Amino acid sequence: MSVRMLINGAALETVSPLDRGFCYGDGLFETLRVLHGRAPLWHRHMQRLAEGCARLQLPPPDVDVLAQEVEKVSVGLECAIVRITITRGISARGYALPAETMPTRVVAAFPFVPMPTNSYTSGIRVRWCSTRLALQPLLAGIKHLNRLEQVLARAEWNDAEIFEGLMCDTDGHLICATAANIFCVCEGRVITPDLSRCGIAGVARAALLDHFGDVEIRDLLPEELMHANEIFLCNSVRGILPVNCVADKSYAVGSVTRELQKHWRANGWMAQDGEQF
Amino acid sequence: MSVRMLINGAALETVSPLDRGFCYGDGLFETLRVLHGRAPLWHRHMQRLAEGCARLQLPPPDVDVLAQEVEKVSVGLECAIVRITITRGISARGYALPAETMPTRVVAAFPFVPMPTNSYTSGIRVRWCSTRLALQPLLAGIKHLNRLEQVLARAEWNDAEIFEGLMCDTDGHLICATAANIFCVCEGRVITPDLSRCGIAGVARAALLDHFGDVEIRDLLPEELMHANEIFLCNSVRGILPVNCVADKSYAVGSVTRELQKHWRANGWMAQDGEQF
Repeated sequence: MSVRMLINGAALETVSPLDRGFCYGDGLFETLRVLHGRAPLWHRHMQRLAEGCARLQLPPPDVDVLAQEVEKVSVGLECAIVRITITRGISARGYALPAETMPTRVVAAFPFVPMPTNSYTSGIRVRWCSTRLALQPLLAGIKHLNRLEQVLARAEWNDAEIFEGLMCDTDGHLICATAANIFCVCEGRVITPDLSRCGIAGVARAALLDHFGDVEIRDLLPEELMHANEIFLCNSVRGILPVNCVADKSYAVGSVTRELQKHWRANGWMAQDGEQF
Repeated sequence: MSVRMLINGAALETVSPLDRGFCYGDGLFETLRVLHGRAPLWHRHMQRLAEGCARLQLPPPDVDVLAQEVEKVSVGLECAIVRITITRGISARGYALPAETMPTRVVAAFPFVPMPTNSYTSGIRVRWCSTRLALQPLLAGIKHLNRLEQVLARAEWNDAEIFEGLMCDTDGHLICATAANIFCVCEGRVITPDLSRCGIAGVARAALLDHFGDVEIRDLLPEELMHANEIFLCNSVRGILPVNCVADKSYAVGSVTRELQKHWRANGWMAQDGEQF
């Protein structure tokens, strides 16, 4: 059987309960879609991971080593989901940083389970979550391991027909879905929430911002979605998912969303041709 | 060698990196001071743990089993620090709760390292942290595993002369120290911050609130400390620690603090006679 998990490069499957990842959520992660051993948005993932390490005062991992490990765990999988976790490792009890940090690096592969094709063609249904995101600029944007807000939000529904939940911050601004970023199109303008106070700045979002060039990044009120012509979610694993329904309000899948899906596919960011359409 | 760690009751020392505690900080912990196998504030710890489980929709652990495990890991230690960690265990990848939760329960003992006696007699020095606590009522009060704010705050100084750092919330209210609650005495009134939007509601704090009966629990501004006659920190491991200095401002150790230290000792909540005075 192929290795599916590497811990600090070794074929192990356990960590210490004294690891600060387990004790305090003191670390970061990345979830990558890997095609034939490579993640199409690799550099963006590594950029966010580096930013997270800087923010948390963690020594950054060796990117080449990570790339080799991602390849190794996904051997034999045409398309895999690989989770990279970097923690501050083991320290003495207490919050104080260790004098010398020996980070823990976990690279684990999971089989990719594709979405039903009609999620990409007809769109998905989403709901509103009542769980709000707290405002914490020090942790905003990065993909750290403190994810209880997302866990609580995702626990709000158990209806397989509803694919995602939209989250507002405690000030009432729309920020994201539990595991995806959101964009909307209003009278030709493409808008996505500002993530400087909370939320995760997705690598798919970053790729789309580069593609568009003139997206409005700003505070977005939930009621603005009522007047949107198009809404879509994105993340690096699922790609571009049109939203056809937010609670009781229906939306058509529009031309901007379609164009983006084509762009996404043209860049080779999806697993198979035809997965999206 | 005695067992110092139990995982789901077994003498193991590892957990899975797929555990939601490691992946998302999806769980809770308690840190207990254990004297001859028993934690003096046991019921309060168990009460907070139960409240945390309810808030996170986790099945509560069996308290009798936990008590046995605490005793087992601390055998041979006159005074131990025991950390109990309860997580949502392993699930499929993603934030969604598993259909059936199999929590992970870690009980680990550490030797107790006493504070220098003069910390209790002359008091300790504290500083202000610039890291703010985000406002999240859904998680306020409970001792969950999402502790990056405390880690960042504690990373702000590396001066052994400074024992703790005071933290404000993002609205500018004083909330707590990185690992202790705070009380102050102003013109005879005992005041402690309201913790309904952030912070951890310590079991020592709860014991003191019961003892006093008429503490003002309210929003507290940092500048109010300038006019305080006494300030002290408390947690269940360290007891009552008088503050003799906040940044550049000095404080005397006052009579309310002394009375509380006596109360604390009289209840048998400290390890040894004379440790506090």
